[in-house]
Amino acid sequence: MSNEYKLSDYLLDVVKYMGANDIFGVPGDYNLQFLDHITHRSDMKWIGNANELNASYMADGYAREKGFSTFVTTFGVGELSAINGLSGSIAENVPVLEIVGAPTDSVQRNGSLVHHTFGDHDFDRFEKAHRQLGIKVERLNRENAINQINDIAQYIYQTKKPAYLILPTNLVEMKVNISLKNDIPNIFNKTAHKSENSFEDIASAIDNSERPVIVMGHEVDRFNIFDAIKQFSLNNNIPLLDLGLGKGNIDESFKNFVGTYNGEISDEKINRYVENADTVILIGAKLTDSVTGGFTQQFAEKDTIMLSYQNASIYGKNVSADYDFINVINELANTKLHLSLPDVKVQIDSDVTPSDNMLKQDFYDKAMRQFISGNNTLVAEQGTSFFGLASQKLTKGAKFFGQPLWGSIGYAFPAALGNQIANKDRRVVLSTGEGSLQLTIQDFGLAFREHLKPIVFVINNNGYTVERVIHGMNEPYNDVPQLDYELIPKAFGAKDSDYDFINVSTENQLFEAMNKANHEEDKLVVIQVNMGMKDTPEQLTKTAKAFAEQNK
Amino acid sequence: MSNEYKLSDYLLDVVKYMGANDIFGVPGDYNLQFLDHITHRSDMKWIGNANELNASYMADGYAREKGFSTFVTTFGVGELSAINGLSGSIAENVPVLEIVGAPTDSVQRNGSLVHHTFGDHDFDRFEKAHRQLGIKVERLNRENAINQINDIAQYIYQTKKPAYLILPTNLVEMKVNISLKNDIPNIFNKTAHKSENSFEDIASAIDNSERPVIVMGHEVDRFNIFDAIKQFSLNNNIPLLDLGLGKGNIDESFKNFVGTYNGEISDEKINRYVENADTVILIGAKLTDSVTGGFTQQFAEKDTIMLSYQNASIYGKNVSADYDFINVINELANTKLHLSLPDVKVQIDSDVTPSDNMLKQDFYDKAMRQFISGNNTLVAEQGTSFFGLASQKLTKGAKFFGQPLWGSIGYAFPAALGNQIANKDRRVVLSTGEGSLQLTIQDFGLAFREHLKPIVFVINNNGYTVERVIHGMNEPYNDVPQLDYELIPKAFGAKDSDYDFINVSTENQLFEAMNKANHEEDKLVVIQVNMGMKDTPEQLTKTAKAFAEQNK
Repeated sequence: MSNEYKLSDYLLDVVKYMGANDIFGVPGDYNLQFLDHITHRSDMKWIGNANELNASYMADGYAREKGFSTFVTTFGVGELSAINGLSGSIAENVPVLEIVGAPTDSVQRNGSLVHHTFGDHDFDRFEKAHRQLGIKVERLNRENAINQINDIAQYIYQTKKPAYLILPTNLVEMKVNISLKNDIPNIFNKTAHKSENSFEDIASAIDNSERPVIVMGHEVDRFNIFDAIKQFSLNNNIPLLDLGLGKGNIDESFKNFVGTYNGEISDEKINRYVENADTVILIGAKLTDSVTGGFTQQFAEKDTIMLSYQNASIYGKNVSADYDFINVINELANTKLHLSLPDVKVQIDSDVTPSDNMLKQDFYDKAMRQFISGNNTLVAEQGTSFFGLASQKLTKGAKFFGQPLWGSIGYAFPAALGNQIANKDRRVVLSTGEGSLQLTIQDFGLAFREHLKPIVFVINNNGYTVERVIHGMNEPYNDVPQLDYELIPKAFGAKDSDYDFINVSTENQLFEAMNKANHEEDKLVVIQVNMGMKDTPEQLTKTAKAFAEQNK
Repeated sequence: MSNEYKLSDYLLDVVKYMGANDIFGVPGDYNLQFLDHITHRSDMKWIGNANELNASYMADGYAREKGFSTFVTTFGVGELSAINGLSGSIAENVPVLEIVGAPTDSVQRNGSLVHHTFGDHDFDRFEKAHRQLGIKVERLNRENAINQINDIAQYIYQTKKPAYLILPTNLVEMKVNISLKNDIPNIFNKTAHKSENSFEDIASAIDNSERPVIVMGHEVDRFNIFDAIKQFSLNNNIPLLDLGLGKGNIDESFKNFVGTYNGEISDEKINRYVENADTVILIGAKLTDSVTGGFTQQFAEKDTIMLSYQNASIYGKNVSADYDFINVINELANTKLHLSLPDVKVQIDSDVTPSDNMLKQDFYDKAMRQFISGNNTLVAEQGTSFFGLASQKLTKGAKFFGQPLWGSIGYAFPAALGNQIANKDRRVVLSTGEGSLQLTIQDFGLAFREHLKPIVFVINNNGYTVERVIHGMNEPYNDVPQLDYELIPKAFGAKDSDYDFINVSTENQLFEAMNKANHEEDKLVVIQVNMGMKDTPEQLTKTAKAFAEQNK
């Protein structure tokens, strides 16, 4: 490869400017030349995954820390293997760029019977399938490639949504002018919007309410607007809550933060705030079944001021057309209304102390809350882990994420690894179950190759407990094979010094294991947590009942 | 569950009639009730996979033995995880039915913000994405469900192509008349077609040729027409070849069978037959890059009589509209033309004898040919394994498959397990590489749970050798983590008595391992075959050069 500046280099410079230094993916016949441009530069790292689904999950987890990520697949086989992971990023608004290496323009034009196609001369099928998902799509062409890259970068930057880019191999080494590199920052120059009318309507509606509360969703994390909301809350003594699809880079130790709302099955002391409110200011949120106890939220559209990136409404009525989400939030941050609310009084959760009792889910969830420090990011798999842990209020600096809307089991393990790669100064703590872990377990190989040191709690409870409580408590379809988690690290290439394995069945053992893991910062620690097959967090039991009702 | 006859029962009765007793898949919130109908009957077995991609691959491998298979996923997350595997079945014409458990009609009508959606009220996205793949789609509705099921069954039966069926949970327990069960065989009654005109044109064209050869593709296996073609070849002394995308349930020991054609890179003694022919009778075939040495076949459309399910042509001219593939082939079987060809003289491949030399790919491929018995099905992963093994002529009774058109690495392991489940009286022999195996390795758990006893050869050659020869011989993106295959079985739940592990580096060790594996019929045997990173079968080296050219 020469030292000339190529289209691939430009694309990677844009990707790097947007925040991604580590590029995930799997090599394939149609992306190999492009990968050269990653491995031949010193400011980026290729992180080869064990498969494409894992790559897409890992990129999602990385973007949740760094605000952006990229992964690379090959045409057909690779991109379709990743499409479920990319869909999770669509559902939960995670800014991920997938780059698909594709056959050359001339192979496509000729309709050649090449591999990784259906042998039907049709090269548009997979792109069209992606379009059906509503994702931004660009297929680079020679004449317009730079504009297409800029367009896709700007889209991701503005919307915080994922995008999909097809790179035919014949464009990989296309020469472009190196001076283009200097213009990259200009891609992201945003023309200032004004939102005077909508802001005034929103502010005055809040001012005319008597007991408002704020409920925050996932867009607060994605658009990085928590500090502005915090300021607004402080200025006006408005109680603050988040949703399970909203926990993230949120400071839950903030004095006005009440807790994580989950419909009427929330803890009573959290519920009270929402029940008593006359106005719910819903910011960047989706009230999905999985984070509202199955649609049991105690407020209707007519009680809600809804502000999100796409649109906004006041008590069900759309706001003025000049509305801009970020502007309005920033304006609110500096607004002192005429409300005279009392100081928010937040109850402190009491600590648990361990005994030699067999470990139960409820104790585990509380112990986990105590365990998580400001330097941890807690990743909770969408099973017993998420439903028990999402309601725990986390200490200052701690971060949290799961995937409650898309809810793809197996997501959490690669996502946790991706998140760990994004910031090695933090320590990721994963809570998953053995049913979910098996779906994506092969990237233990990557974890050891990359010397990652997360703590991995594997709840060993004999199968898909989250499904059992929805339907089929004792049915064999909810069983999974019993793996030997003590052997897994070495089977996937770990050396003795790379990891520790701890088996836990009692409360005291859990505390000891947590303590040990904290002292083994230089190791990946797997903690097998044995719990009863039917032992579930209360919030899951209640949500599952609602899920089961929906299925009738 | 009551004893009443439900729509689910009817659907499963149809599935069973079509040949599937073992149903693959992964449970999920929207399919659990349906799974009850599988686990509650004694004539079917639920085979729960470790993930959905593996389920789709396993179903594909099962259908290649049984002629049909079914797997079950859940809405959104599950079906999209499986879409790459299903696409392989589309590309290579494997009759697989995917049943997707979906939210109820009323949840969909209301556009509820339920999990496993994008929270955008749109429940049609995933179905539409599937439609873009050109697959047959049915979304069951209350009024017409029986007809829809019959329609999809008939489609699969006639075309041997996969299909995709959406089952909303509210229809799972819909009562239907049990007498419908008696009519199931009638679904498959086919009206007789006549193909007199097209048959006469085809037969006379062959008759007017001087040195015809037959080249068979994958439809010969799917439509089970090998015996008819064999008869036609015998009657007229026409030499017979197959393609890599065509080996399957073909008797390669048949006296007129010359070998597996792979374009001009085929073995000289095979090539000669095609070079010397004035007419190639191409039956049920696709001349894809991966089975023609990169489009190097030595015959053009003007030399070809092409017969396939979809259409037929004689020297480039379409045949008469009354053409019916199966009819024409069956007519040919009973036809004695006026050709007077000499007996086909097939050269016998000479056996190799092992030494203490380090094992090389070329020796391995030949040793494998000798090893495979009439009771084995050899499954070759689309890497060094396929390219070296597809050209080996197999003994009577032996079967073979890979996935050369779709070429999704990771396919072969679950496909081999599915194939083993389909027929436990045969013994499946898998040849894969460590680069590919890692993509889908978690179904070792299933293999031991189901007490499967295949022989698994894992070529350990430090990464993606198939990619290295295409591009990036020494690039780190072609590396993979080094797993410990000796520990893998136990890590995935094997007991000592369930498996054997043999490590092989020399020719003699390979022969000993093969011998041992043959005597350990009650065990799953993993044979790690250590070979050089750059050691590739000649056919791969040549094909890779063509692939690399295509990418420019």
